[in-house]
Amino acid sequence: MKSISLLGATGSIGIQTLDIVKDHKDSFQLVAFSAGKNIEKTREIVKEFKPLIVSVQLAEDAVALQKEFPKTDFVFGAQGLLDVATCPEADVLVNAVLGSVGLEPTLAAIKAKKNIAIANKETLVTAGHIVMSEAKKHGVAILPVDSEHSALWQSMHGENRKDISRLILTASGGSFRDQTREDLKNVTIKEALNHPNWSMGAKITIDSATLMNKGLEVIEAAVLYDVDYDNIDVLIHRESIIHSMVEYHDTSIMAQLGTPDMRTPIQYALSYPERLPRSTAERLDLAKISQLHFENVDLQRFRCLDFAYKAGRMGGTILTAMNAANEAAVGAFLQEKIKFLEIEDLIERIMDKHVNILQPDLETILHVDKETRKSVQSMIK
Amino acid sequence: MKSISLLGATGSIGIQTLDIVKDHKDSFQLVAFSAGKNIEKTREIVKEFKPLIVSVQLAEDAVALQKEFPKTDFVFGAQGLLDVATCPEADVLVNAVLGSVGLEPTLAAIKAKKNIAIANKETLVTAGHIVMSEAKKHGVAILPVDSEHSALWQSMHGENRKDISRLILTASGGSFRDQTREDLKNVTIKEALNHPNWSMGAKITIDSATLMNKGLEVIEAAVLYDVDYDNIDVLIHRESIIHSMVEYHDTSIMAQLGTPDMRTPIQYALSYPERLPRSTAERLDLAKISQLHFENVDLQRFRCLDFAYKAGRMGGTILTAMNAANEAAVGAFLQEKIKFLEIEDLIERIMDKHVNILQPDLETILHVDKETRKSVQSMIK
Repeated sequence: MKSISLLGATGSIGIQTLDIVKDHKDSFQLVAFSAGKNIEKTREIVKEFKPLIVSVQLAEDAVALQKEFPKTDFVFGAQGLLDVATCPEADVLVNAVLGSVGLEPTLAAIKAKKNIAIANKETLVTAGHIVMSEAKKHGVAILPVDSEHSALWQSMHGENRKDISRLILTASGGSFRDQTREDLKNVTIKEALNHPNWSMGAKITIDSATLMNKGLEVIEAAVLYDVDYDNIDVLIHRESIIHSMVEYHDTSIMAQLGTPDMRTPIQYALSYPERLPRSTAERLDLAKISQLHFENVDLQRFRCLDFAYKAGRMGGTILTAMNAANEAAVGAFLQEKIKFLEIEDLIERIMDKHVNILQPDLETILHVDKETRKSVQSMIK
Repeated sequence: MKSISLLGATGSIGIQTLDIVKDHKDSFQLVAFSAGKNIEKTREIVKEFKPLIVSVQLAEDAVALQKEFPKTDFVFGAQGLLDVATCPEADVLVNAVLGSVGLEPTLAAIKAKKNIAIANKETLVTAGHIVMSEAKKHGVAILPVDSEHSALWQSMHGENRKDISRLILTASGGSFRDQTREDLKNVTIKEALNHPNWSMGAKITIDSATLMNKGLEVIEAAVLYDVDYDNIDVLIHRESIIHSMVEYHDTSIMAQLGTPDMRTPIQYALSYPERLPRSTAERLDLAKISQLHFENVDLQRFRCLDFAYKAGRMGGTILTAMNAANEAAVGAFLQEKIKFLEIEDLIERIMDKHVNILQPDLETILHVDKETRKSVQSMIK
């Protein structure tokens, strides 16, 4: 029995994590979780899973819930996230919050010797050097939840890392893969949120449309698997069936395939090194799908991916600046304050003027993150 | 350094095995090999690799070669194959002979505690129960050389066998995949030998066109990996890029991909559990290939595959009868004695009248093999 604490229980990954816990009551139990302001959903989860600790965003919600459910401890805010992340009863922390808010709780959980199932890619992007060295120091595993990183990980299982010659991340190409840059000038939020294959949160869906999502994944893969950027390729694969691949120096490529269902990689992160059955899940039928397509990605067309490679190769605080600029710009797009192509313009402006600091500490990262967001806001107004 | 003995050095797999030994002189050395009647090629191999023991088919060839190369021991015939297979200096036997002639040397090598890299599928098809139990008894590994079985094996590496739900063998569909049964009535040998993807020997190329090759592979996979026939599927995949796949009970599918180059699986069998570089080999470029196609196989169209499933499910001497009937019938087709569709008619007639014996011993298998060939000859004349 593995005891799980979950940051971001009411988000897309959080809800699917709860599905997996529900499906395997003999293997997993939820001991702690955090939610934001969705109190109705929080209530449902508390009723069903009876956790020990629950964190919400606001103090008043915590107080109200505490009266309703006296057997659970309710906490709130930034400290609440830390309490959930370090819950003494938990074996593994699933970090499924969005954005850089996941950083501090992750480091706290590592120090508390929890294995980390990480869906919060910003943590690895902005503070990968700290997270990986802390994980090594405290002997904990960083378990990928993203379908691409899970595919890479599964494709490396039992292999010698030194034999790897290349990682190949597949990308659906997002909502606008068939549009020209000219077409992109006036796309709407509704169009951007219409992802062809995966059902995900709004921010990630926009990141898929710009390919910044893939850029963050490239950086995450470099950090997680210690592979040089020159040996990480992105391949457009419309059907999202091959979730990613690893090429070895004997020219063999190992790949993981499946239906587009995030619950499979979530479950693998939790069950690893075991695989548990997913009896109700749809099985992949390649004959029915009939064709898989592949094409190279155009870095002029998808500039955010190019930015990510550049920032990744540089390292340091420019990763934080790029990520924060992207979060702020996507937020502004979702609020209809800027147009779609302005997302990449804003990121470029931030990166161009950034004074890079290598090997930043946590304080520096958080400072750059905050200043960058302010800077983006001032550019928008 | 691994010392290798090789049965069938002058055939397609044999020559490619020698390429791998040549490419990795620090890792592999050839200590023994067998050839048939191709004395010119035998001479070349002896000069290049300076083996300890060489077996040829005819006594007079052995005598002549012995005079020419006094430092190598030349042997011949059935005993010669056994001498090569059990060469005391060898760590691993690569069995790359065609047909059931590979059976006795394989068993002798297992008893002599050699690991077996097996490209001779008839050995596993007709005597799989004996080979696998002897291998277990003597603690030797049976290493697959076939690209499909190597792909399955690589896709299982580091996994728990109990988590496997299905093996998916891919099949190019062979030379006649786009023809109707009506078209097949009058196809020529030349057309049959024109395989779309792989460059192989004549017998295997015909077996690819009938899909008997895939049928034998299904049986081989069932034997090697102890998977039920109900859980082994064949999928037509024209491009032969995904070499085969393993589905796990969490719905994940692991696959091995590569260019159609037999030297990669041959090398993997020899280097396992290491992977060695193949610096001169072509790397897979999926963007260039652009599309992969998949379709279900029609067992009415490819009757030999249906026969193989039937024989596999029955077990016993019917496997030997089917395999011997196929060898004899393909031989007759290659000699223009019968038409293409008569191959499957002959196999069906043999299977229909076969009195099956379960768990046969080696003597019984060899007897059924011999009698079946006679029987096929009598049906042709």
